[in-house]
Amino acid sequence: MSWKTYIDENKDRFVEELIKFISIPSVSASDDHFQDVVKAGDWVVSRLTAAGLKNAKMMTTETHPVVYADWLEAGSEKPTILIYGHFDVQPADPIDLWDNNPFQPIIKDHRIYGRGASDDKGNMLAPILAIEAFLRAEGSLPVNIKFFFEGQEEIGSPTLAKFVRENSNLLKADMIFSADGGQFGEFQPSLVKGLKGLTGCEVTVTGAKGDQHSGKHGGGIANPLHALSHLIASMKDIEGRIKIKGFYDDVLDLKAEDRHAISLIPFNEKEYAKQLGVPETYGEPDYSTAERLAARPTLEINGMWGGYQGSGIKTVLPAKAYAKITCRIVANQEPKKIFELIKRHIEENMPRGVKVDVVRLSASANPFLIPRGHNATEIVRKVLRDLYGKEPIETYEGGSIPVMSMLLKELGIHGAVLSFGLDDEQVHAPNEFFRLSSFTKAQIAYGRLLEEFKKI
Amino acid sequence: MSWKTYIDENKDRFVEELIKFISIPSVSASDDHFQDVVKAGDWVVSRLTAAGLKNAKMMTTETHPVVYADWLEAGSEKPTILIYGHFDVQPADPIDLWDNNPFQPIIKDHRIYGRGASDDKGNMLAPILAIEAFLRAEGSLPVNIKFFFEGQEEIGSPTLAKFVRENSNLLKADMIFSADGGQFGEFQPSLVKGLKGLTGCEVTVTGAKGDQHSGKHGGGIANPLHALSHLIASMKDIEGRIKIKGFYDDVLDLKAEDRHAISLIPFNEKEYAKQLGVPETYGEPDYSTAERLAARPTLEINGMWGGYQGSGIKTVLPAKAYAKITCRIVANQEPKKIFELIKRHIEENMPRGVKVDVVRLSASANPFLIPRGHNATEIVRKVLRDLYGKEPIETYEGGSIPVMSMLLKELGIHGAVLSFGLDDEQVHAPNEFFRLSSFTKAQIAYGRLLEEFKKI
Repeated sequence: MSWKTYIDENKDRFVEELIKFISIPSVSASDDHFQDVVKAGDWVVSRLTAAGLKNAKMMTTETHPVVYADWLEAGSEKPTILIYGHFDVQPADPIDLWDNNPFQPIIKDHRIYGRGASDDKGNMLAPILAIEAFLRAEGSLPVNIKFFFEGQEEIGSPTLAKFVRENSNLLKADMIFSADGGQFGEFQPSLVKGLKGLTGCEVTVTGAKGDQHSGKHGGGIANPLHALSHLIASMKDIEGRIKIKGFYDDVLDLKAEDRHAISLIPFNEKEYAKQLGVPETYGEPDYSTAERLAARPTLEINGMWGGYQGSGIKTVLPAKAYAKITCRIVANQEPKKIFELIKRHIEENMPRGVKVDVVRLSASANPFLIPRGHNATEIVRKVLRDLYGKEPIETYEGGSIPVMSMLLKELGIHGAVLSFGLDDEQVHAPNEFFRLSSFTKAQIAYGRLLEEFKKI
Repeated sequence: MSWKTYIDENKDRFVEELIKFISIPSVSASDDHFQDVVKAGDWVVSRLTAAGLKNAKMMTTETHPVVYADWLEAGSEKPTILIYGHFDVQPADPIDLWDNNPFQPIIKDHRIYGRGASDDKGNMLAPILAIEAFLRAEGSLPVNIKFFFEGQEEIGSPTLAKFVRENSNLLKADMIFSADGGQFGEFQPSLVKGLKGLTGCEVTVTGAKGDQHSGKHGGGIANPLHALSHLIASMKDIEGRIKIKGFYDDVLDLKAEDRHAISLIPFNEKEYAKQLGVPETYGEPDYSTAERLAARPTLEINGMWGGYQGSGIKTVLPAKAYAKITCRIVANQEPKKIFELIKRHIEENMPRGVKVDVVRLSASANPFLIPRGHNATEIVRKVLRDLYGKEPIETYEGGSIPVMSMLLKELGIHGAVLSFGLDDEQVHAPNEFFRLSSFTKAQIAYGRLLEEFKKI
């Protein structure tokens, strides 16, 4: 039996296993779910062992655990590859916008719906299944393999760099493939050229020492929500230009060739707006929407709140207002520097009558650009071309995969993305799903990747 | 036994009764608590009957009920007075900022802590107890009395005007006294000269059809929280001037005599800031803080929210952003007109890439000014002067008592405030309390009010 037949014959079981995996609410952002992240790690360890991997184990970090496994019997003349993914997921709220319980996945229209279905449980399970298929079919692998899965990706991998540094021998490899990421379209493969980095902060504006009656004290003291609105409005003008002094200083100007390359990416502005349900696209003038999405840094408010949120009216003058802000940064920008520019902007635009605190969020990632002709990327190009019957386009991803730049820094290896998420899958949002066809495609892709190593 | 002795001897029982009254979570803003509002009304009906009032009954309106009772045996040559109050309360959230359960009141340092302790349960219970004392001590009253309590004040009495109009004969009186309101200070009585009115709206900004990944779509589509921040910031400049076109047009300029009268109100700017815990006072330039609090209209954001509010980070580009806005308006401004000016401002400053909806909040109140020499106010002046041994000052209240202008309109009677709330009582905020001394003082004040009618 070939590995392909094995994948085909075990299709239903593999989906059942993915359902079990998604059912573990491994939300790394919530302290309440820490044990669920551990539980998901345990599940992965068992699954790796069942697949025939050796040395599968959970390892602790200073925060959330990681999982390691390997198969190193291909011999020292063969390269060693490391496959990366993550078993933690984003929070599921707002829960009431889901059509099903996000941790009781359902199958509908050949899709599996649940938190983490696409990001990243479906994608990270696929290479394990491919290895199982290969080992059952052929008894061995044509390459040495290490698996490295983390449980803290969705909170920005705060303690992963230290772990990788301290375990660099264990994780040493010749190439890295990331099972976290996506493809341009269901029928259009893509190679990730660039990833945006990430930095962010939480802003707390404090006014009076408790919520006050807006009639008694309105006109007497400042309103933290007003002060925060002024701060937020001052950071980005009404047209979408970021107004923080120095923010764009380190950004590389888009050259004519970059703009040409981006223009080759299929992108229909009207379709895009329609798909997202917005009246029109929006952002920094002087750049096309495709250019902004690919290669321009952004500043977004991920959350903002204060005062009364219930039904009806409560005439309160709130004591506090909060905002969570993150920036996606591009090549040459530095997370810490950008955070400091935001902090300085706030200090220089401090509203009267309130106190403002700015705390850097733990999530941080450097932007990442893959050099042309890079070995792992060229292998992925071949696998994708054969799988889709179409030349992959080169894309930039707005979603950062912070671990890619961290692994480059700590292990000196550029990773290549071999993953099958698609843009419409409601990643980080209610009703996240993963196509069952993508799940199978991912397994076959990793099977083909192994086939490529027979030739090396 | 005199009515004073009766009040003194029943002090503990009266406090026990107030505890029971506060324990009913009669939050009118929440549909879930509708039956609790009814329950509080039932409690009031029983208490009125126990006090010796006649015809005590709950009456339905199109929303929350009202309670009526009377004692009309003083004879037709004596005037009829109507005493007003409300038995509904503000929502208690944020619950976690309370030191005790807001609906399990506790006594600490001669204060009773609980939602509604001051606003208005403690204050509205006092005249009932005073009548009971008077009837037990003297067997009759020197004036005809009607009680009229409502269960919808904290949501702006949406269906009260219609009820009053349809029951104008039942509610007909010569004078109205409001047991909702307050005094300037614990040792400084005051007469309410002016009340601010109220109007407000809820703004909903809608972007994409669901929450999106900020990395994937940041730079491509507008962020509703940014758009809303720009709108909010445009409504009031950083110094506190309201920038909505026409907003101040109908406001009467403060004359030198008005400014002088306000300057007589004891007000220590530094103490005020310290009491509220703010670094400095804040508001419209060219007016003193006392003037702004007394006689200038305000626009406050009571609540604003969107996106992720949990711990840690969630890199979401939210689909929706919300704000609740209310204005306190002053004499000559009209609630509906001000709402329409806000709506027009939003339409004229509509950000790109999003949809904005503006809905008027049901709460609405006209501003209210009491004429000099007004009969009920002069009686209150005498009662307060005797009770405090000090001439009351004339004040303006920022907190609207919408029913005062509504009763003026529907019944043609200017009400006078005889109530004992104080500014530091955390009204509409966590840890609301009422001084037990104020509770007793309020009972004695209503006893003295009755004494005054012996002379008429």
